[in-house]
Amino acid sequence: MKNELLFRKAEEKDVDKIVKMLANDPLGKTRENYRHPLPNRYIKAFEAIQSDPNNELIVAVLKEDIIGVLQITFIPYITHQGGWRATIEGVRTDESVRGKGIGTKMITWAIEHAKTRNCHLVQLTTDKTRTDALRFYENLGFKATHEGLKLKLNSR
Amino acid sequence: MKNELLFRKAEEKDVDKIVKMLANDPLGKTRENYRHPLPNRYIKAFEAIQSDPNNELIVAVLKEDIIGVLQITFIPYITHQGGWRATIEGVRTDESVRGKGIGTKMITWAIEHAKTRNCHLVQLTTDKTRTDALRFYENLGFKATHEGLKLKLNSR
Repeated sequence: MKNELLFRKAEEKDVDKIVKMLANDPLGKTRENYRHPLPNRYIKAFEAIQSDPNNELIVAVLKEDIIGVLQITFIPYITHQGGWRATIEGVRTDESVRGKGIGTKMITWAIEHAKTRNCHLVQLTTDKTRTDALRFYENLGFKATHEGLKLKLNSR
Repeated sequence: MKNELLFRKAEEKDVDKIVKMLANDPLGKTRENYRHPLPNRYIKAFEAIQSDPNNELIVAVLKEDIIGVLQITFIPYITHQGGWRATIEGVRTDESVRGKGIGTKMITWAIEHAKTRNCHLVQLTTDKTRTDALRFYENLGFKATHEGLKLKLNSR
């Protein structure tokens, strides 16, 4: 059993490892702030996610180690005849397990999970510089039908 | 005062007009189901949005007529040092007011509204076939830095 990949909601004790994984990435290292003690912003965000029934921060666990993370947001939309969607964000695996298919298992799990929430669509955006990620998601059946637009605000 | 464009949260009595606008669109007409009585799925989605403090269905009102709609979802993320984002979806104006800058006023309002919720980013995806929409958002300062990927599920 302990060699199985397990998925569960993150707990506060996991946030340190989660931020470490997010920061260990070409884009993540430019925007995260992994240090000790961990900036309180991360804990506050974790608490906001944990208290929201439509947000889940999920960790992948192998042999009791956290080796992956992703966040799913379930959104009720009026469009598509009032359909729920699952939005995936912040997908990261630990560098020790890269190239071993863990990412595929994580997204496959997330897709099945979205079905249990009656979603008709799973969506995500990926930075255009992440060409490997684009190929990865297309191999899983995602279609890059949309432009993903972002506007940075100066609110902080 | 009555000639001013006003923004407010949608009420249940507005859902009929909202769906009418969503369906009156090249893509919307293929996926919405505007008829009377309105399919209950729309009312259920409206109720789910209304009861979620992180989801807002907003209508633009001119001279007491609903002439525009958009939905904003506020999402607490662990990424970007635990930053909140606003996701905009389902932007539509009534055909009677197109080309009059109403869309710009709606998105500008949504951006200011996102700032009041302490968001560091406003994001949306737009179908790649909507080339006018892409230009519209880029003119408002959005950057098309991401691919927008969608996976349709067979859950319904």
